[in-house]
Amino acid sequence: MLSLLSNSLLSAPAIDHYFSEISALFVPLPILAVVEAENAPILLTGVLLSLVVIYLASKIGAEISQYLNFPPVLGELVGGVIVGISALHTIVFADSGLPAADSGIMSVLQWIYQLTPTVASSVFASQSEVISVLAELGVIILLFEIGLESDLRQLKAVGVQAVVVACVGVAAPFAAGTIGLMTIFHVAAIPAIFAGAALTATSIGITSKVLSELGQLKSREGQIIVGAAVIDDVLGIIVLAVVASLAKTGEIDISKVIYLIVSATVFLIGSILLGGIFNQGFVLIVEKLKTRGNIMIPAFIFAFFMAFLGNAIHLEAILGAFAAGLVLDETDTRNELDELVKPVADLLVPIFFVTVGARADLGVLNPAVPANQSGLLIAVFLMAIAIVGKLITGWVVFGQTGINRLAIGVGMIPRGEVGLVFAGIGAASGAIDKPLEVAIIVMVIITTFLAPPFLRVAFNQVAVNESNQNNVSS
Amino acid sequence: MLSLLSNSLLSAPAIDHYFSEISALFVPLPILAVVEAENAPILLTGVLLSLVVIYLASKIGAEISQYLNFPPVLGELVGGVIVGISALHTIVFADSGLPAADSGIMSVLQWIYQLTPTVASSVFASQSEVISVLAELGVIILLFEIGLESDLRQLKAVGVQAVVVACVGVAAPFAAGTIGLMTIFHVAAIPAIFAGAALTATSIGITSKVLSELGQLKSREGQIIVGAAVIDDVLGIIVLAVVASLAKTGEIDISKVIYLIVSATVFLIGSILLGGIFNQGFVLIVEKLKTRGNIMIPAFIFAFFMAFLGNAIHLEAILGAFAAGLVLDETDTRNELDELVKPVADLLVPIFFVTVGARADLGVLNPAVPANQSGLLIAVFLMAIAIVGKLITGWVVFGQTGINRLAIGVGMIPRGEVGLVFAGIGAASGAIDKPLEVAIIVMVIITTFLAPPFLRVAFNQVAVNESNQNNVSS
Repeated sequence: MLSLLSNSLLSAPAIDHYFSEISALFVPLPILAVVEAENAPILLTGVLLSLVVIYLASKIGAEISQYLNFPPVLGELVGGVIVGISALHTIVFADSGLPAADSGIMSVLQWIYQLTPTVASSVFASQSEVISVLAELGVIILLFEIGLESDLRQLKAVGVQAVVVACVGVAAPFAAGTIGLMTIFHVAAIPAIFAGAALTATSIGITSKVLSELGQLKSREGQIIVGAAVIDDVLGIIVLAVVASLAKTGEIDISKVIYLIVSATVFLIGSILLGGIFNQGFVLIVEKLKTRGNIMIPAFIFAFFMAFLGNAIHLEAILGAFAAGLVLDETDTRNELDELVKPVADLLVPIFFVTVGARADLGVLNPAVPANQSGLLIAVFLMAIAIVGKLITGWVVFGQTGINRLAIGVGMIPRGEVGLVFAGIGAASGAIDKPLEVAIIVMVIITTFLAPPFLRVAFNQVAVNESNQNNVSS
Repeated sequence: MLSLLSNSLLSAPAIDHYFSEISALFVPLPILAVVEAENAPILLTGVLLSLVVIYLASKIGAEISQYLNFPPVLGELVGGVIVGISALHTIVFADSGLPAADSGIMSVLQWIYQLTPTVASSVFASQSEVISVLAELGVIILLFEIGLESDLRQLKAVGVQAVVVACVGVAAPFAAGTIGLMTIFHVAAIPAIFAGAALTATSIGITSKVLSELGQLKSREGQIIVGAAVIDDVLGIIVLAVVASLAKTGEIDISKVIYLIVSATVFLIGSILLGGIFNQGFVLIVEKLKTRGNIMIPAFIFAFFMAFLGNAIHLEAILGAFAAGLVLDETDTRNELDELVKPVADLLVPIFFVTVGARADLGVLNPAVPANQSGLLIAVFLMAIAIVGKLITGWVVFGQTGINRLAIGVGMIPRGEVGLVFAGIGAASGAIDKPLEVAIIVMVIITTFLAPPFLRVAFNQVAVNESNQNNVSS
């Protein structure tokens, strides 16, 4: 029908004849709509094949990573690197500037459908866009889940210690990273602040998982680490919102920084305070609903609305999703919601990690290319700051005799989701370029790699890890 | 940054200056990628707001429908009609030919971001495409779930009776509908076959839900209805694959019909037979996996790969997803998988139903417009065939003394997901036009509306329904 209609473009009577043949009653559709509709199954085929490749990369990567005793998220990232622009070129994106012919997915579609060059680049652009939005929905659901897993009451219990550890652990690497990049590497302010900000947030997911693997989640050190990681997450997201907004305006404006800190704080604190009222309504509504998705749909209406609001007030969608998670964490349906969000997160979150890996062009870190050497130097510098900036937090803990300060410091080292979010958003907004993006990703990979063995040494329990290997799966 | 770069288009040195300011080390990004990346948060904002509106429409519609004792899916469809092109114009699609300014979502984005006309229509096109793909993923997951809920063993138990009911219930309305449309209404062969095919498949979801609401799921009549609905579903999907492929080629080719019937049958039966071997592997793999999503991701790799294959061999993605569901239904992890797929289906399936409703332009059925009257006549004709064509199936049951033949016939009446899939795919491929699409949707709505009260009368149990109202929620 495509070729028939293309021919029809040359001849209006032919269109009339064709449609009058179908039925004299029927109103002819606009040509464009028909041609677009004709491409819809091709786009769907491309999206489905992309998802199959992404899931294979994420699962194989996660399992190998798990087997080697590293966090699974690391494997998803590496899986993405392997199917992405650095290696197999299966999952590449139109906004990288590559032509459709360089995409493995598009080559398969080309083979199946014999696309014209115009249709091929249009499908390539659409497929890239759909996968990118799915990845963004993935990180929104991830931050919603992190919000659900975070616990404001737990935070209050571990109290002042956790706050001090979190603040120092955010301030030290941020300041040292930003200033170091600007003075030593002569990086401009915005990318330097972005990279500094990417050093701030400890991964609550990775940290709490590693602690549970070591059987240290309920220890005093574990409680402080988890509490600090929760505050860290909030601070990191505020920093991200501030930095990303700064990157968008293209300049540093102190009044804007204050506005953003205030609006991020008001947005987050305000939604949590108003959330108390919302919670009552939410539970009442959920109890009244009788159809399928009675918990899921109201929860996701709230999460997506908050994410929309976060984006709409020029902060970030993930900030809204995180706030929505924190609010719903306080409801009675919390455990049920946790269980329901898990499969959705399992399905959408890997798309985010794999595409972050797939977009990372590790070629820029090839030391054989002279121009890359400064990129590698940046990566080494970021790693040093990332480790030292968090290690020192153990020694700011006061009033706790006999505490394992090294364990606390090491426990704060792993960066994860939030660091990758910085890399992804920074790259997407054009605030940071590829060497810096890859340097951040390498920093996340290395800190995530180092944390589990380092933490084991810090807790001095080589044997415990072995005996707990069987209950690490979630 | 957008305006900065737009200005820079006029002046290459300005770009160099801007980028050299950031860092001498950094490779400048292509202009296009930066502009696209700049629009990415706008697209995301639009998608998030669309999802909020879609979920509100689906949940409010489903709950009102449930309250009025109609199937929830009906309310989702009506909710879609209300937010769609027929009424509020909140969710409209670029392929309808409407400009961005006619979309409620785009008006909000316009107000937030002050878009230029070019950016507005580009974002509108992308947002339409993303929501359409999400809806298609929704129907793929729905058919995967229907496959999981279907049971080949149950089918064998109710045996010959169910097969006869299913075959007559497919053949009678298909033949009567197609021939009637061609002879009485002078509709061309392809749209007539499409509409006839849309009359075939009983909704297993709606039927089994209504039966359970009436407490008749385990009765002899209930068993035959459910068994027949399962076979019906498979037949309907084969018919859909055949008809949709026919619509794509634009002509009727008997050898192609045979090829498609054979390939659909081979694809479905073959994947179920090979599925036996796959099942062993699937269970072994799932047992070995230790990371999150150990059941979900392998299951969805299989479902999406089968859906991809269905599309790639020029059948339909949903056929592959249904086959994947049937195969995985036979595994030991079936119950666990059912529970995991539910929240994902709860989140994605409503997008499909709401967008089907939103795309349906009920304005074409306004009887005040003379040109619409034949469309209304078609709808009345389709409804009559839809009801009579299934009612007679009760009287083809043999060897079962004292069976409630009226109940079986009425139980087969509700059309649902598959009928809407026909309407959606038919409209998307350009095979059927809007009056016929709306006539099919009206037929689905009316049969779905009529089935619950009719079935209650047929089972002669007005009181039972009242006493069972409390356990209707899933």
